[in-house]
Amino acid sequence: MFKHTRKLQYNAKPDRPDPIMARRLQEALGGQWGETTGMMSYLSQGWSSTGDEKYKDLLLDTGTEEIGHVEMISTMIGYLLEGAPTTMTAEEMKKDPSKAALLSGMDPEHALVHGLTAGLNNPNGAAWNAGYVTSSGNLVADMRFNVVRESQARLQVSRLYDMTDDEGVRDMLKFLLARETQHQLQFMKAQEELEEKYGVIVPGNMGDIEHDEFTHVLMNFSDGEGSRAFEGQVAKDGKKFTYQENPEAMGGIPKTKPADPRLHNDQG
Amino acid sequence: MFKHTRKLQYNAKPDRPDPIMARRLQEALGGQWGETTGMMSYLSQGWSSTGDEKYKDLLLDTGTEEIGHVEMISTMIGYLLEGAPTTMTAEEMKKDPSKAALLSGMDPEHALVHGLTAGLNNPNGAAWNAGYVTSSGNLVADMRFNVVRESQARLQVSRLYDMTDDEGVRDMLKFLLARETQHQLQFMKAQEELEEKYGVIVPGNMGDIEHDEFTHVLMNFSDGEGSRAFEGQVAKDGKKFTYQENPEAMGGIPKTKPADPRLHNDQG
Amino acid sequence: MFKHTRKLQYNAKPDRPDPIMARRLQEALGGQWGETTGMMSYLSQGWSSTGDEKYKDLLLDTGTEEIGHVEMISTMIGYLLEGAPTTMTAEEMKKDPSKAALLSGMDPEHALVHGLTAGLNNPNGAAWNAGYVTSSGNLVADMRFNVVRESQARLQVSRLYDMTDDEGVRDMLKFLLARETQHQLQFMKAQEELEEKYGVIVPGNMGDIEHDEFTHVLMNFSDGEGSRAFEGQVAKDGKKFTYQENPEAMGGIPKTKPADPRLHNDQG
Amino acid sequence: MFKHTRKLQYNAKPDRPDPIMARRLQEALGGQWGETTGMMSYLSQGWSSTGDEKYKDLLLDTGTEEIGHVEMISTMIGYLLEGAPTTMTAEEMKKDPSKAALLSGMDPEHALVHGLTAGLNNPNGAAWNAGYVTSSGNLVADMRFNVVRESQARLQVSRLYDMTDDEGVRDMLKFLLARETQHQLQFMKAQEELEEKYGVIVPGNMGDIEHDEFTHVLMNFSDGEGSRAFEGQVAKDGKKFTYQENPEAMGGIPKTKPADPRLHNDQG
Amino acid sequence: MFKHTRKLQYNAKPDRPDPIMARRLQEALGGQWGETTGMMSYLSQGWSSTGDEKYKDLLLDTGTEEIGHVEMISTMIGYLLEGAPTTMTAEEMKKDPSKAALLSGMDPEHALVHGLTAGLNNPNGAAWNAGYVTSSGNLVADMRFNVVRESQARLQVSRLYDMTDDEGVRDMLKFLLARETQHQLQFMKAQEELEEKYGVIVPGNMGDIEHDEFTHVLMNFSDGEGSRAFEGQVAKDGKKFTYQENPEAMGGIPKTKPADPRLHNDQG
Amino acid sequence: MFKHTRKLQYNAKPDRPDPIMARRLQEALGGQWGETTGMMSYLSQGWSSTGDEKYKDLLLDTGTEEIGHVEMISTMIGYLLEGAPTTMTAEEMKKDPSKAALLSGMDPEHALVHGLTAGLNNPNGAAWNAGYVTSSGNLVADMRFNVVRESQARLQVSRLYDMTDDEGVRDMLKFLLARETQHQLQFMKAQEELEEKYGVIVPGNMGDIEHDEFTHVLMNFSDGEGSRAFEGQVAKDGKKFTYQENPEAMGGIPKTKPADPRLHNDQG
Repeated sequence: MFKHTRKLQYNAKPDRPDPIMARRLQEALGGQWGETTGMMSYLSQGWSSTGDEKYKDLLLDTGTEEIGHVEMISTMIGYLLEGAPTTMTAEEMKKDPSKAALLSGMDPEHALVHGLTAGLNNPNGAAWNAGYVTSSGNLVADMRFNVVRESQARLQVSRLYDMTDDEGVRDMLKFLLARETQHQLQFMKAQEELEEKYGVIVPGNMGDIEHDEFTHVLMNFSDGEGSRAFEGQVAKDGKKFTYQENPEAMGGIPKTKPADPRLHNDQG
Repeated sequence: MFKHTRKLQYNAKPDRPDPIMARRLQEALGGQWGETTGMMSYLSQGWSSTGDEKYKDLLLDTGTEEIGHVEMISTMIGYLLEGAPTTMTAEEMKKDPSKAALLSGMDPEHALVHGLTAGLNNPNGAAWNAGYVTSSGNLVADMRFNVVRESQARLQVSRLYDMTDDEGVRDMLKFLLARETQHQLQFMKAQEELEEKYGVIVPGNMGDIEHDEFTHVLMNFSDGEGSRAFEGQVAKDGKKFTYQENPEAMGGIPKTKPADPRLHNDQG
Repeated sequence: MFKHTRKLQYNAKPDRPDPIMARRLQEALGGQWGETTGMMSYLSQGWSSTGDEKYKDLLLDTGTEEIGHVEMISTMIGYLLEGAPTTMTAEEMKKDPSKAALLSGMDPEHALVHGLTAGLNNPNGAAWNAGYVTSSGNLVADMRFNVVRESQARLQVSRLYDMTDDEGVRDMLKFLLARETQHQLQFMKAQEELEEKYGVIVPGNMGDIEHDEFTHVLMNFSDGEGSRAFEGQVAKDGKKFTYQENPEAMGGIPKTKPADPRLHNDQG
Repeated sequence: MFKHTRKLQYNAKPDRPDPIMARRLQEALGGQWGETTGMMSYLSQGWSSTGDEKYKDLLLDTGTEEIGHVEMISTMIGYLLEGAPTTMTAEEMKKDPSKAALLSGMDPEHALVHGLTAGLNNPNGAAWNAGYVTSSGNLVADMRFNVVRESQARLQVSRLYDMTDDEGVRDMLKFLLARETQHQLQFMKAQEELEEKYGVIVPGNMGDIEHDEFTHVLMNFSDGEGSRAFEGQVAKDGKKFTYQENPEAMGGIPKTKPADPRLHNDQG
Repeated sequence: MFKHTRKLQYNAKPDRPDPIMARRLQEALGGQWGETTGMMSYLSQGWSSTGDEKYKDLLLDTGTEEIGHVEMISTMIGYLLEGAPTTMTAEEMKKDPSKAALLSGMDPEHALVHGLTAGLNNPNGAAWNAGYVTSSGNLVADMRFNVVRESQARLQVSRLYDMTDDEGVRDMLKFLLARETQHQLQFMKAQEELEEKYGVIVPGNMGDIEHDEFTHVLMNFSDGEGSRAFEGQVAKDGKKFTYQENPEAMGGIPKTKPADPRLHNDQG
Repeated sequence: MFKHTRKLQYNAKPDRPDPIMARRLQEALGGQWGETTGMMSYLSQGWSSTGDEKYKDLLLDTGTEEIGHVEMISTMIGYLLEGAPTTMTAEEMKKDPSKAALLSGMDPEHALVHGLTAGLNNPNGAAWNAGYVTSSGNLVADMRFNVVRESQARLQVSRLYDMTDDEGVRDMLKFLLARETQHQLQFMKAQEELEEKYGVIVPGNMGDIEHDEFTHVLMNFSDGEGSRAFEGQVAKDGKKFTYQENPEAMGGIPKTKPADPRLHNDQG
């Protein structure tokens, strides 16, 4: 069960409106790697967790924090859209081409659909969808995913930071950068502990069934020589990589049977 | 530029048809973490790469191999669908309820849309989409993503392995397990090298701008005590985690202005 | 069965082309609450209706009218795109920055994909999808949905009206505003009649099974005092709302069992 | 900012596992009208609200409660999936056809993708997406949407109730039914108050611009006589409906110009 | 503008209910190549048409007919769902495994979401979306698309026909087969006429700019010899195909520059 | 199995960067009819093919070539994005409105999400999805689809050609135009051969079951006279088209039964 306090976790107030920056921030709200993806992934993983209580708790702590980040960014977008232009005549566009460019660069749905407030989508208006979320039941795999989520998110926040000189926006982004540092570090720590227990290959308990001769071979399917650079190096499981210059096609030429005539597969 | 040989990289022939297993294998073909996601992510990252040739080559080698895996799984699905039932009368269902269950458990679009061949979707018929792909321009972040792709994929292949006793299907899955071991290891190796160069926090070159006081704090937003377990432990960047029992709401209560009346936001 | 007349239901001709307004009108054509959503929802509900003929007829009348609205807006978009610029050199952009802004603000797919005619998507190019449609089999619920459809649509049309001073476009929008007034009113009337028969709570015939102690309680999950303002007021079913300052967590702490090892859920 | 308590808002524990019921409950979790849609719509509307504090608070209270409902249903799905079958040989299917039917009726991704835990999608595996969410900036329109959300959701919960005889599942559903009664009532109350202030037609402040002759006419586009039944009745705004037997096509036949040859619209 | 008559264009009544056939028919309603795709494509093309009136009229005639086909199939699905089982206890499943298989093979959303009426989606529950529609502004290209639409649709209808022995369903399908024969033929006729005017290569008026040396070469990128079979044959434009055994890579090795450091593309 | 060479199939290097052209080229990469759609359709069809080896080979040859086209366009987009502006202050926008228009017209995700490299989406940022792909098992139907794919793609490339005067970009487009000429011609040739074998109506082997009286009738559902123009003309199967001025509604008025009360379909 959840409770809400009206105060934000951290400041989310720009120095001045900027509808183009509002559009860009939609990436952090409703993009593939935005806060909604973090929130729904960590909460789902937490609710599904059946093992050590500390991982479950770490996931629920972080997932709950992310709801507050979704709130902060939604709020910031609302401030940035204050007073945004929503229309110009052809005449006005000629007189003020930079304002025309501003209008052109905005998300038209910010005004039309949301009345100048945030939407749950990315800067190109693609609706957030749960195809971005991961919750696999396997904690090692999911902790790795979480590190990626925080890495991609922090990368985007760092790009957003360099796209504005508004000190209010930057203040919020500096906070988000810091939390995404913490979240990268904590999920790496959990990943490390779990790898010690289950091994570095996910999943850890498959037994001795895979075809061993293919587990450490760099296969050269391209004419570059780059992959060879890893030859002989020690992999994370302690064994050495080998290199295969000309990987052969080991399977036959497939030949499936024609389907039943009732499928009407007219095939030449 | 690419070339194709008709021989498969490895065997992809089941001992006997099994339309329900065909449906399940669609996850490995067109699911969120399936081979198509690997293929399109690694190729995109490789084509976008501007740095050290060896990483670019590693990505293109692996991406090219994955096209061949997409081919193998498509082929296998075709074999598994041979002779699948496509219809039964109510009468027949009563007489042969286990065959009825087989028909019910198949993907109806395998027959209806694809004439008993593979489709580019997951077992629930959701079309594969590029929202599953990642290519960020940042190699450290993307190598981490690639490790996750291989981890989630191997997890699913291991589950598929335990869902069949067909030795032909298992032979192919043992090969895929092995390659996904290799790919996990090689991308971890590349990740490791890149982290040494750029640091463990992505992105590596943000300078000293983030709010430092929040970079190593485990914040307790849940009533569990689990996150506390990491308190005092050393993070991957060498610093120690601290713990905050009652994280405060540091931002104010937001208060955006009503929008221009022309937005018609009738607000109470 | 349907018949078509080449004449439009009402005027759909602008005074002059305006490719940015064409882009905005895509919301009314292919957006979440646009005419296509109305058309497909009302027709689907009408075809599914099994009760009183008058509601079925009301739905089919309105659904059929909406096909004509889809036609009008498609036509209007075609007119607005006449002679739209499709390219400018860097040189030309410098000389005529307001035309450059116009080009930037257009939907590039209007030219590239549709040859300067309408597409079935919103202004951000998101394809219309049937996730916007509702047809539940329950007429009370669906009449309520229809009122919302007309409300959101009229809100967007009113915003579109204030985004242009083209009298031709405004003439069409004034007609649409009027029809959306009528449609709000007629669906409210039908809703009212149906609520009298089935009760104000949807669905109406669940018997006495719900947990009564939770049906009229405003629960305070936020630290605001706002919800309290409804305390003691009379709800539409004649009973009074009560208020709970500190809603308690009545369920236990969940504890599901670890999954079968064959799921490979490596959990810490 | 949000806080989480590990205890659930209400009981979410079935008497026994039932993987088919788990699949059905996905509708309430990740379907068009499920709890996630409620949660994200109410929170978004609350964060966007700029008017009377009590409506903002009502939205945030309810949105926060809904996060807890998402949690309850995710938990319930996890319990229902305990010990679910994940595979059967052809031999076993023949011997136990009812278990075969169970396996066929399950969502195969519950095992394959989520390790027998919940996913953020509907029973057919369609990923939840933000095209289901509404937050328009106009409170009257959005309160109406919220009533619909609770109506459709309660309808689905009532159907779910009749699809199981598990007393544990039913206990949770009885609670949800009750809360959806409360939420229907509270949003109707807010809607009523706002309509008193802004009028029953959304949006309320469009001035006197719409074409009045079309605001109260039932147009007969179908050959049924049903719509006529409303003729002469009083609409919610106090005026009477009229009826038009043969609505005429008032617009001309559209004739747009051929596009510039550079669009290559080879038109006959 | 459109008008509707309550009578269906043709019979759409099954001899008996069959919920699994209802699910399959969803392909013809809301699948990639179903009637909704035809309806929206032909209407859009018709409304966009600026050339010879006869093609515009052909498109609008056929598009209008398709609305009636959408209606017929929706109606048929409703009949097929009459009395469908919506739940069984574990006990009942054991006693009646063939009914259990029936329940497993149904679309669970038919009952849960639509109250046993049709939805606008395919048999796997994927919502119809406008990514299936084509309206390019170029009539030759679109007539070709229309022939494909009718070919894929007729193929699926022919498969549906062989999946049932219900004479009522078959009667409707025989009608649809016939209309799809007519529509294939009429669009081929229009295509033929247009190709005579604009040439067989779309688009027809590109001038003499393409690189001629690559317009009639079969390039062998695979190790099969199959493409060679077309060598020397006459193409539809009267010229002969040539064959290239080893197509060379004519472009260089690409080498884009590293992005500005503000993009934070940490590349090795 | 596939192999890759680092050299591109043809030149893909612009004379100068142009981020707006980069955005437009996304249509050819990740749009409905772009190269990815060709690649995945032809490969899928080839892998599914069970008939004459030459068609299978033609499909695999062309599908393999298309991977190289995806590579060329991705590369070109990368070059076009070199040095693109990613931010401007309000001050800078005023001073340089044409650069502001450039920034507004770019895809903001090119910088934010991909670090100024290509994404797998269309110019409006819609992720490529497999709903664009066709592989039906029926070769005649699919060859027709392939002709459409190449026609729509060549149409878009011809529009792209006229949208730039960059000789480097045009050089690549001239090559693509030529290959799309070849691919149209080769698939038409294969289609022609297959039609000779199976007949011009797809599918070819349905026997004599369709309702013959409806197979050659142009039905007039619109008030135009256009379709009449085809009356008496000879269709591709050698028979003549007839014309029906007033097609009648031959089916009855549908009347499905109310659903079981447990569906809670409150119908008036």
